[in-house]
Amino acid sequence: MKIRLAQSAMQKYDIKAEQNARLLAKSGVFAVDVMGSPGAGKTEILERTVEAMVQDMTVGVIEGDICTERDADRVRASGAQAVQINTEGACHLDAHMVGEVLENMTLGELDLLFIENVGNLICPTRFRSGAAERAIVLSLPEGTDKPEKYPSMFRSCAVALVNKIDLIDVLPVDLAELTLEIRRVNPHMRIWPVCARTAQGMEGWYEWLREGVRRSAAGR
Amino acid sequence: MKIRLAQSAMQKYDIKAEQNARLLAKSGVFAVDVMGSPGAGKTEILERTVEAMVQDMTVGVIEGDICTERDADRVRASGAQAVQINTEGACHLDAHMVGEVLENMTLGELDLLFIENVGNLICPTRFRSGAAERAIVLSLPEGTDKPEKYPSMFRSCAVALVNKIDLIDVLPVDLAELTLEIRRVNPHMRIWPVCARTAQGMEGWYEWLREGVRRSAAGR
Repeated sequence: MKIRLAQSAMQKYDIKAEQNARLLAKSGVFAVDVMGSPGAGKTEILERTVEAMVQDMTVGVIEGDICTERDADRVRASGAQAVQINTEGACHLDAHMVGEVLENMTLGELDLLFIENVGNLICPTRFRSGAAERAIVLSLPEGTDKPEKYPSMFRSCAVALVNKIDLIDVLPVDLAELTLEIRRVNPHMRIWPVCARTAQGMEGWYEWLREGVRRSAAGR
Repeated sequence: MKIRLAQSAMQKYDIKAEQNARLLAKSGVFAVDVMGSPGAGKTEILERTVEAMVQDMTVGVIEGDICTERDADRVRASGAQAVQINTEGACHLDAHMVGEVLENMTLGELDLLFIENVGNLICPTRFRSGAAERAIVLSLPEGTDKPEKYPSMFRSCAVALVNKIDLIDVLPVDLAELTLEIRRVNPHMRIWPVCARTAQGMEGWYEWLREGVRRSAAGR
C-alpha cells in the first residue's frame, strides 16, 4: 500500500516533468539540469558559461536552493535572466516547482536554460525537471570514489564537468582514476576537466551546449 | 492530513532515536554523528581520529552510504570496529537503521562510537540517530557560503572541522570569513581548521572527544 502510494506520487512528478519538457521543446529552449555536491562549483561553472554564451544567445537560469538568493544574484551579474527557487527545506527541485517558474518566464525569448539543483548527489536524481539533458559538476577535491557511491546520479547525467582542475598538483587525486571510476558507472559520459575560476577547459562544454541549442531551435 | 501523517512518521523516528540514546548512555558509549558534503573528508577525518584514539580506548564506527563497503573497510584498517549500513537509495541514516546495528554490536566493549552519515547537508539534519553530539566536516574548497545555505545542518551540530586547510594558499577562500559565516548561523560552534591527511590541527577535536568519553563513562 505504502509503495503504491509512493509510486503514484512519483508518477505525478513524472507527468509534470513531461509537461515541462513539452513546453520547453515547443518554445525551442535547450534546458540542462546542473547537479552536484555542495561546493562543487555549479554556480561558478554557470557564471563562466553564461558569460561565454550570452555573446550569441539569450540564457536563463533557474537556481534551486534551500534558502538565500545568492546564486541567482551571481548568475544575473553574468548576464543571465535568473529566477531563484527557495525549496524551504526540500533537498531537491521537483517538476512542479520548476513548472511554476517556467509558466512565469518568457520562454520564447530564451535559447538556453540552466536549472541548477540543490547541492545534493542523491535526492535530485529521482526528480526529473523536464530538462532535455543533465550535467553533473564534481570537483577534484571530492576524490575519486563518488561515482561508485552515487551511481544513480552519475548514470542519470550525460556529461560531467570535473571542476577545480587547477588543484591537480596539490591534491592526492588521480584524474585518470577518477575518469575510469566515472566510466565504470556510465561508459558514455562525456567528461571535461575544467577550472571554472579561469574558464580553462570549458570549450568542449560550450560546444556541446551550442549543439543542443541548435537542435532545440530546429525542433521548435 | 498529509502533514499529520508526516509528523507521526517523524515521531516514530524521534522515539527510536531516544531509545538509541538511552541504550548508548546505559552502555557508557560516547556517540557522535559525523555529517558533511560528499567529499568533505568525513572518512579521512575518522581514519586519523581512530588511529589517535585507539591508543587509549575502543572505537566503533557505523558507516552510512547509499552503496559500497569502501568506508567501513577504510576505518577498519585504522583500528576501529566498523559496520557498514547501505541505505539502498535513502539519502540519510535514520534511527531505525542505526538501532538495528546497535543491537548487534557489543556496546559494553566500546568507549567511543562514530556514526558517519551519507554525504548530504540537508536530509540527515532532521533524522536524529540517538548520538549525544553532532559534528560537521566541511572542507575549504566548498567555499564560505554553505552555512547560510544549509543553516539547519550547521545549527544542529556542536562542532565543526574545517578540513583541507593545507589548500589555504591555493584557494580563493578566506578562513576568517568562513568562521564568521559559521558563527552567524551557530554562534556557539566550536571550530577546528584541520588537515585530515596529515592530522594537522586535530588535537582540539581529540580533546573534545576524550572529554565526551569521560563524561559518558562516568554516567554509565
